[in-house]
Amino acid sequence: MGMAFLLLITEEQDNFMKDNPLVLITNDDGISAPGILSLVEVVKEITNNVVVVAPDKPQSGMGHAITMNATLRLNKRDISGVEAYSCSGTPVDCVKIATSKVLKSKPDLILSGVNHGSNSSINVIYSGTMSAAVEGAIEGIPSIGFSLANHSIEANFNPIKAYLKQIIEFALSHKMKMYDCWNVNFPAVEKELINGIKVCRQADACWEEEFEERFDPAGNPYYWLTGRFVNREKDKMDTDEWALSNNFISLVPVKFDVTDHQAIEGLKMIENG
Amino acid sequence: MGMAFLLLITEEQDNFMKDNPLVLITNDDGISAPGILSLVEVVKEITNNVVVVAPDKPQSGMGHAITMNATLRLNKRDISGVEAYSCSGTPVDCVKIATSKVLKSKPDLILSGVNHGSNSSINVIYSGTMSAAVEGAIEGIPSIGFSLANHSIEANFNPIKAYLKQIIEFALSHKMKMYDCWNVNFPAVEKELINGIKVCRQADACWEEEFEERFDPAGNPYYWLTGRFVNREKDKMDTDEWALSNNFISLVPVKFDVTDHQAIEGLKMIENG
Repeated sequence: MGMAFLLLITEEQDNFMKDNPLVLITNDDGISAPGILSLVEVVKEITNNVVVVAPDKPQSGMGHAITMNATLRLNKRDISGVEAYSCSGTPVDCVKIATSKVLKSKPDLILSGVNHGSNSSINVIYSGTMSAAVEGAIEGIPSIGFSLANHSIEANFNPIKAYLKQIIEFALSHKMKMYDCWNVNFPAVEKELINGIKVCRQADACWEEEFEERFDPAGNPYYWLTGRFVNREKDKMDTDEWALSNNFISLVPVKFDVTDHQAIEGLKMIENG
Repeated sequence: MGMAFLLLITEEQDNFMKDNPLVLITNDDGISAPGILSLVEVVKEITNNVVVVAPDKPQSGMGHAITMNATLRLNKRDISGVEAYSCSGTPVDCVKIATSKVLKSKPDLILSGVNHGSNSSINVIYSGTMSAAVEGAIEGIPSIGFSLANHSIEANFNPIKAYLKQIIEFALSHKMKMYDCWNVNFPAVEKELINGIKVCRQADACWEEEFEERFDPAGNPYYWLTGRFVNREKDKMDTDEWALSNNFISLVPVKFDVTDHQAIEGLKMIENG
């Protein structure tokens, strides 16, 4: 009896979600982007304890940039009745100032997005959305970045709302630990075409740059960054790129230790000159 | 006899450095920083084939930011007689525009730095200097970021020049492969106090933010980001932080696959809802 009771408790703890967990929401498309509004709407169904701190302007491609040589401003906003602040800094600044200045206690979860455009494979490194999530994890707060594979400002977030809710509830039910970070990307298709969630790894991919040269009215050149996405392992079924092209939602666990541990032994010879 | 000859060839290939390898140099402190000049001076002793493309202003803390919504400018400069360009973008922009527009062929090595201030442990993620090196590796070019643990503009780079040369020559002698990236940090001490090079891993550390609130003349608040560095594993002798505090040069091999591979199996349960 005692044993059975104990087992019951353990199982319950495993699926336990505390009442009204504190969730911080940010993004990199800016506080006015439709993607963050969709995320707020979903989180409001789960908890009454939501705070938004997001950039006051688009911050795509900001990576893990922080504001070191300038000051930051915070302005009170309202998103769908939720306490919200716009911040003049980067997505990582938003997480830092939220946990340090805005929130009264440590959040149970940080959510970033929903990003307009995929952050799969190597984009995890360039993305302000994912860097905000990584920053949360560095600070010991479970964090998830969400992205929809559609760059349009008019992208339709309705097909993914049920999945968003499922993943957030799973994360809050003690399945996510304090330094955990997930990179979740949704295919931009109708709900009935989504094949489910696939836990996978970051595909080896890169951008091949092509800078477009133009000339200003004075005849001096300037450049626009453009590029072509190159997936270096197209047929690998365990990658996020494969999952997305096959209408799965990709979930990649992400870590902030970037050491190439396997390379350490082979390099030891440099220690001897 | 034949066998001995073969062994000799193998050994020679192992330490082979091609004549005048093409080396690209960048940084995040900006093209006028003393640190990049020191690096150029060392590389000039190794090859005649050096090109500098570096930010036109300080870009510390820019992480892996890229310029997506604005244009870039390049301006011809000269550093110690070497072909050089200042770029209006981030350190990662510098690498992208250098490999795509400036250089006539793929460089043999990309060097970033020498940074004024350490980029050990978690700083690898915030650092523009290291992000430039990581960008090189993503593009398949061996890359090294160098940093000196002294933020001062008047930091003395002379004590590290012999070591810089040793590491660069080691890298060019076919010890570094195409996607390899190293994060090298020097202690800010006199040469005779340096205990040598230590190949190690990124220490688990973070910044505890403290935003300083001030008020503008109109009485509105603004914030300065300040922080306290917290090493979460002080006694671990295999970390870069330990190496630096014990006057070793730390060398951490870095990779751009940030997947937490060990976490994948345990998360598979989410695939079943």
